[in-house]
Amino acid sequence: MSLLQINSFAAGQWVAPGSGAREIENAVTGAVMAQAGNDALDVVAMLDYARTTGGPALRAMTFHERAKMLKALAQHLGQHKQALYDLSFNTGATAKDHLIDIDGGIGTMFVFASKGRREMPDGHVYLDGEVEQLSRSGQFVGHHICTPLQGIAVHINAFNFPVWGMLEKLAPTLLAGVPAIVKPATATCYVTELAVRLMLDSGILPAGALQLVSGGLGDMLDRLTCQDVVSFTGSADTAFKLRSAPHILRNSIRFVAEQDSLNASILGPDATPGTPEFDLFVKEVHREMTAKAGQKCTAIRRIIAPDAQVPALIEALSDRLSKTLIGDPRNEATRMGALVSNSQKRDVLAKAALIGAEAERVYGDPDSFDVVGADGGKGAFLPPMLYHCVDPDGAQRVHDTEAFGPVSTILGYRDIDHAVQLANRGGGSLVASVITHDPAVAREVALGAGAFHGRIYINDRTSMKESTGHGSPLPHLVHGGPGRAGGGEEMGGVRGVMHYMQRTSVQGSPEMLAAIGGRWIPGAPEIAAQAHPFTRGFDDLEIGETLKAGPRVITLDDIEHFAEFTGDTFYAHMNDEAAARNPFFPGRVAHGYLLLSFAAGMFVEPNEGPVLANTGLDGLRFMKPVVAGDALNVRLSVKQKTRRTDEYGEVRWHVTLTNQAGEAVAEYELLTMNAYSA
Amino acid sequence: MSLLQINSFAAGQWVAPGSGAREIENAVTGAVMAQAGNDALDVVAMLDYARTTGGPALRAMTFHERAKMLKALAQHLGQHKQALYDLSFNTGATAKDHLIDIDGGIGTMFVFASKGRREMPDGHVYLDGEVEQLSRSGQFVGHHICTPLQGIAVHINAFNFPVWGMLEKLAPTLLAGVPAIVKPATATCYVTELAVRLMLDSGILPAGALQLVSGGLGDMLDRLTCQDVVSFTGSADTAFKLRSAPHILRNSIRFVAEQDSLNASILGPDATPGTPEFDLFVKEVHREMTAKAGQKCTAIRRIIAPDAQVPALIEALSDRLSKTLIGDPRNEATRMGALVSNSQKRDVLAKAALIGAEAERVYGDPDSFDVVGADGGKGAFLPPMLYHCVDPDGAQRVHDTEAFGPVSTILGYRDIDHAVQLANRGGGSLVASVITHDPAVAREVALGAGAFHGRIYINDRTSMKESTGHGSPLPHLVHGGPGRAGGGEEMGGVRGVMHYMQRTSVQGSPEMLAAIGGRWIPGAPEIAAQAHPFTRGFDDLEIGETLKAGPRVITLDDIEHFAEFTGDTFYAHMNDEAAARNPFFPGRVAHGYLLLSFAAGMFVEPNEGPVLANTGLDGLRFMKPVVAGDALNVRLSVKQKTRRTDEYGEVRWHVTLTNQAGEAVAEYELLTMNAYSA
Repeated sequence: MSLLQINSFAAGQWVAPGSGAREIENAVTGAVMAQAGNDALDVVAMLDYARTTGGPALRAMTFHERAKMLKALAQHLGQHKQALYDLSFNTGATAKDHLIDIDGGIGTMFVFASKGRREMPDGHVYLDGEVEQLSRSGQFVGHHICTPLQGIAVHINAFNFPVWGMLEKLAPTLLAGVPAIVKPATATCYVTELAVRLMLDSGILPAGALQLVSGGLGDMLDRLTCQDVVSFTGSADTAFKLRSAPHILRNSIRFVAEQDSLNASILGPDATPGTPEFDLFVKEVHREMTAKAGQKCTAIRRIIAPDAQVPALIEALSDRLSKTLIGDPRNEATRMGALVSNSQKRDVLAKAALIGAEAERVYGDPDSFDVVGADGGKGAFLPPMLYHCVDPDGAQRVHDTEAFGPVSTILGYRDIDHAVQLANRGGGSLVASVITHDPAVAREVALGAGAFHGRIYINDRTSMKESTGHGSPLPHLVHGGPGRAGGGEEMGGVRGVMHYMQRTSVQGSPEMLAAIGGRWIPGAPEIAAQAHPFTRGFDDLEIGETLKAGPRVITLDDIEHFAEFTGDTFYAHMNDEAAARNPFFPGRVAHGYLLLSFAAGMFVEPNEGPVLANTGLDGLRFMKPVVAGDALNVRLSVKQKTRRTDEYGEVRWHVTLTNQAGEAVAEYELLTMNAYSA
Repeated sequence: MSLLQINSFAAGQWVAPGSGAREIENAVTGAVMAQAGNDALDVVAMLDYARTTGGPALRAMTFHERAKMLKALAQHLGQHKQALYDLSFNTGATAKDHLIDIDGGIGTMFVFASKGRREMPDGHVYLDGEVEQLSRSGQFVGHHICTPLQGIAVHINAFNFPVWGMLEKLAPTLLAGVPAIVKPATATCYVTELAVRLMLDSGILPAGALQLVSGGLGDMLDRLTCQDVVSFTGSADTAFKLRSAPHILRNSIRFVAEQDSLNASILGPDATPGTPEFDLFVKEVHREMTAKAGQKCTAIRRIIAPDAQVPALIEALSDRLSKTLIGDPRNEATRMGALVSNSQKRDVLAKAALIGAEAERVYGDPDSFDVVGADGGKGAFLPPMLYHCVDPDGAQRVHDTEAFGPVSTILGYRDIDHAVQLANRGGGSLVASVITHDPAVAREVALGAGAFHGRIYINDRTSMKESTGHGSPLPHLVHGGPGRAGGGEEMGGVRGVMHYMQRTSVQGSPEMLAAIGGRWIPGAPEIAAQAHPFTRGFDDLEIGETLKAGPRVITLDDIEHFAEFTGDTFYAHMNDEAAARNPFFPGRVAHGYLLLSFAAGMFVEPNEGPVLANTGLDGLRFMKPVVAGDALNVRLSVKQKTRRTDEYGEVRWHVTLTNQAGEAVAEYELLTMNAYSA
């Protein structure tokens, strides 16, 4: 059988394997099936191509344009996922594992597409936080902007998730406006190569936005600059080697690492046998031990249970593990497939032996287990192996040895403080979970173990039907962990996009900052409206376009009438003496909602026009009381415009209500949906 | 004269200099004035003291308690600043320089105190961002929490700002709840020692929160864990040495670096001689060259001006520089004092010589200049030195050599693109500025140079009266820069506090996440109110306490009456056909403000009580139109409580309005101020 030739995609060309190519094993049969790598890959041309072609093209797009691109890519991959499934069985993964890797990767891309549209602006600058007042009269202010790095993201990915591992980094990178060079682990790079080919062939990406290195990176990392990012997933040893390169350190090149992790799951003290939480715990541990044959960076390596429950837990877990069908991943009945390679299998056994020196194996024998539909002597199969460590305080290897396969160790705890201490002995990990129905236990774990974990997963009878599992990082939430886990963060919605952008504080006059951010700031020039802005289409409205209306005098009759009509007879509006006793008011005051309503009455244009609806209001603050006799004025300025659908966009208006002395009495932001043309 | 003995403060004890102590020079006289350092410092005891005493004490406090502690510390230092001024003259700093270092440091602490009170919760968990919906029915949600690192912050500070350099790191560290060990640069550690002594003697800090190393750190960095942070300010070479230590890298120990920076200032193309901006530019450059004798990490090292303006600029700058009185910093007329030491002076001259190989010196002669009131041959004095490089594209040293003194180089540019390119040649810096009155120029610089700079400072005739200067990092804004500048970030308000906290994503049921975050989440249990919550004091109200009211049927009369009364006759409320043409509405709909007002009418308690005022409203969204005949119900739940003054605290209520079908029609958060007891 001829070997699959796994190509790289470099500077616009597919490059076949060449000198220095490595052979790749089929996980299920143990036979060599493919080769990848080429020592002659032109690293300089790749970097140049990304810098001069891909970067400028991506930066010319807005966040929303890039988000739409992600959505189209995800849809395209979704249409071709059967081909990815078919190929991926060779990695040892089952159909259920494909849901994590392939469907999970595509789903992650969809979430970033959606967050890009909903949470980022329809422009080139992302604004972080609010305007900072730096001076008394407001003509010198500060703001934080985020702009795309003008370099390249180099993604060095692990073998276990050849699709998700690429897409979870690629989505935020492209959304930021930065081109990527993806280097998958060689063992499963053939699946990544297919996914890359699908994306490139779709024609959705601009040239230079995505390149692929199947095989080694050569000296690429020594050619990076302060505008580049390395995002690494893999072993702590490799991470250490790469990040300690003098070139990386001297140039402060961003290095995001996600590496070893001795994740823990805690059985709550309340979750005794017979409770829904005990059963849930067994189910979660079983899934984490067997899914992807335990080759998950988030898998539960340490099972932390009350001393009293350890025997029952060993029994329940062993029972469930014994029903796990191991074998050919293409077989639908198979519950656990093969590890990625025989070399990986040997590594897992070596690490398990280290753990075995501190813990007794209570389930699973690697020398004797059934493999269905495949040759267990040739493929990289292992059974789930459960250990029990009776001295978790004295032990060290169980807390620092990641056997990257179906291996986990039970540790007993005395009380919840002890459980937290044991969880933290991992020295920093990606995730810790606690299965409890007691919110006080959840809080104690979160506060005690939070600083050591990138994610805390809590599950109980209430959330179990909808929960996504201890081992599933979600694109909405940050994934990563301190210390041993690498000290990095990925995903987390917009937070993950920031790894590929620079946050810059900007100081200047409101006019200057408004020009940069595309968002009007109080104190910036007001553009006098030529016509009522409610008669002008979205596309015609200018940032800063301002309508002023008023005055309207507020009478005591107005206040009394409003109270009677709405039923809002709060004492501050009705009882002069009670109101005066209040630290905020001189006496009876107008209702806040009366002010809002009268303001709308002053600025609204009654005729049918491009304003379609008032959809909301943000940041309303009442700043000064309004009493009968006060005269209200209103100022309405276009703050920001965001295209939403083919028919209409959202206009955010800054509204200030003032009294006859010109003092602001209320301030808020009003949201309307406006048709593009009048 | 006997030498000042500069102590360390270790594990609760003041420790005098001992074996290995280094001598410290008086900058103005060149004479040895003090000694500091002790090889026998017990580093293990210091770390242990911080971990077991300072950390737990700080973590037991809430953010607001820590903010109040910062305010008290700042006030205490403010009362003793004359002593700091008096001592600080020996570093070569003038009274004006003290405003930056001493007053600036105290001011920074006040800003963090204020931000801690206003922007952080009155509790132990900081919530980052909003709840993420992870499931259909809402019983599995996600949130990001930040909790203090359970370790130590080691602050390694530069010599130039012995007070500000400590306080700008200490304030966010203590606010986070993390103890600090401060190691000032030995050259000026005597000023830091006094500031530390003042803080410790005040009794405001819990034991173990603050320790001081005057002299060397020994092997402290090799004893840190993943819960510790090193925050370094100084040279790129030292930073490289420290951050490349295998122990730091293997344990992913956070290392925040602020190092060399070749900051640039761009004269806008519009800012020709005769404009206010040209004069402003000369003033800014002059200040940055001479303040602190140019020993500022943010000083302007590269002056980027239109080719045509270079001669006029050299003339104007030389003229202004020539009026700079150099000499004894205690003399009020002195405009520029001494550098910190003669060794620093030699280093500046060596670096200036490198620049001199690529640029012509057009002002300042280190071999011939006047020093008033001091011995220029003994003190570490230098004149301002201005260079002009005619080939900025071909040059390299002017872009990468930081002469940390009163040295700057003029580079001519062809167009604004070229100016941005030159600014970015610094390879990453702390700040770039542009003096322009043209918002389009400001935008071009911000977008083109943002990714290379941690701060962009824009100034013109509008902001100049209130502006704080190119070289002044502000506590509200991030300070730091990519690449050569170290890749770190400091300050920036709450952003700076995050360097000392771990961000953890948390998943679980709304009840669990509410218990952890101290903030009610929709879907969490609603506690039925025993009495109307408006009759209960702040302290009695429970998170989740809920009032339900309604129904109230909305009539067409209500809509018409509201329109007439308020003047809001927007067509969607008045014209059935026009409203139906609108993509959002089935026909005439009720006003959004009518809904808000009626909702208040339903839930308000009219009698005088602990609710003092409705102070605002956040995140209002109208989700479904309400038409005549619909029946409105309202649900009001206590979401969060924040103590504000001695008399009252803020209650944030989550409000949902539903129709007769139970569908949400509007949702918002209401803010009230409530007396602590009923």
